[in-house]
Amino acid sequence: MTIHYPGGQRPVHKPVAAISTSHSSIYARRGMSLEAELNESNAYYLATKRAVVHKKPTPVQLVKVDYPKRSKAVIREAYFRRPSTTDYNGVYHGHYIDFDAKETRNKRSFPLKNFHQHQVLHMASCVQQGGICFAIIKFTTLDRAFLYPASQLFVWWQQERDGGRKSIPLTEIINDGYEIEYGLNPRLKYLDALDSFIHDHQL
Amino acid sequence: MTIHYPGGQRPVHKPVAAISTSHSSIYARRGMSLEAELNESNAYYLATKRAVVHKKPTPVQLVKVDYPKRSKAVIREAYFRRPSTTDYNGVYHGHYIDFDAKETRNKRSFPLKNFHQHQVLHMASCVQQGGICFAIIKFTTLDRAFLYPASQLFVWWQQERDGGRKSIPLTEIINDGYEIEYGLNPRLKYLDALDSFIHDHQL
Repeated sequence: MTIHYPGGQRPVHKPVAAISTSHSSIYARRGMSLEAELNESNAYYLATKRAVVHKKPTPVQLVKVDYPKRSKAVIREAYFRRPSTTDYNGVYHGHYIDFDAKETRNKRSFPLKNFHQHQVLHMASCVQQGGICFAIIKFTTLDRAFLYPASQLFVWWQQERDGGRKSIPLTEIINDGYEIEYGLNPRLKYLDALDSFIHDHQL
Repeated sequence: MTIHYPGGQRPVHKPVAAISTSHSSIYARRGMSLEAELNESNAYYLATKRAVVHKKPTPVQLVKVDYPKRSKAVIREAYFRRPSTTDYNGVYHGHYIDFDAKETRNKRSFPLKNFHQHQVLHMASCVQQGGICFAIIKFTTLDRAFLYPASQLFVWWQQERDGGRKSIPLTEIINDGYEIEYGLNPRLKYLDALDSFIHDHQL
């Protein structure tokens, strides 16, 4: 079952069976959503004790819940709420890490409208507390993914507010970001990219 | 609206209106749930840039979602899922912090059955990554709350598994924990207790 937000922005929880596709070929990643890739990678990192990172559940506003006798509670009316934070956070080697994952079918730039004001503000608050924040940006058509530091995102975000361009060019993402390698296990080796980032910034 | 988990373990999101009670007296806290007190305190800490801590949404398994024309998506059938982590995490002064909040009406000890295996395992994984984990335990009848280090909880948890007692005596919680003062803003000054813990453990 795949259910999308109105507007199609955000894939919602899928039953585990739906995301446990075969690992037999790295080409199997084609068609796999970035969220599914990250869920698999986080499960691998957790099992191998490299990091503890979880996707936050999508918040819902409950309106009506039934409590049938001898059976579990059933939610009968509820609505999706906009999250007040990013989707992923956790702890890695003593660091608080916090990020959002975004996909685009564009080939040359990443549209800033994929980010929401509250996500950017949340990342700014976390950075101010000493957390490490970034976006994982995937160009699905190119099959390339990048770890892009929040500090760079803030610059583009502000420029756009001031009337500047509405997207980040791929060339800039290549320049300031860290390309994430694909593999078998984990599928998306984003902690390796994060290590480079931490090393470069002496965090 | 107040909705409880089957088994009555965990209060679910309440509309903001339900938790924004008057601040005119600290006695107003009586009858306020620990979750509501923490939500208010976290909002205050966020606004004053002292920490970024959020409660995670309760995960639900979606089964049926309607997409009415010209209206937002309505969840028509869904079920509560057991969370795989603790309820709260965030970043404070460069530290990853992670905790669960528990209440008891007992006066002399805190029953270990209030914790679930997955929560204890999650805290152990986070501690291993250099995070700071604890429980916030409130004795509602006594109107006293404590920050209780995960490292101590692990000891009692293991003892119980080995056939030991099924609750932590209040005297031990007073001994090894850090009492949390109540105030107007924030209502529950748990970061002050955390500062003492960080100082004592040279973190």
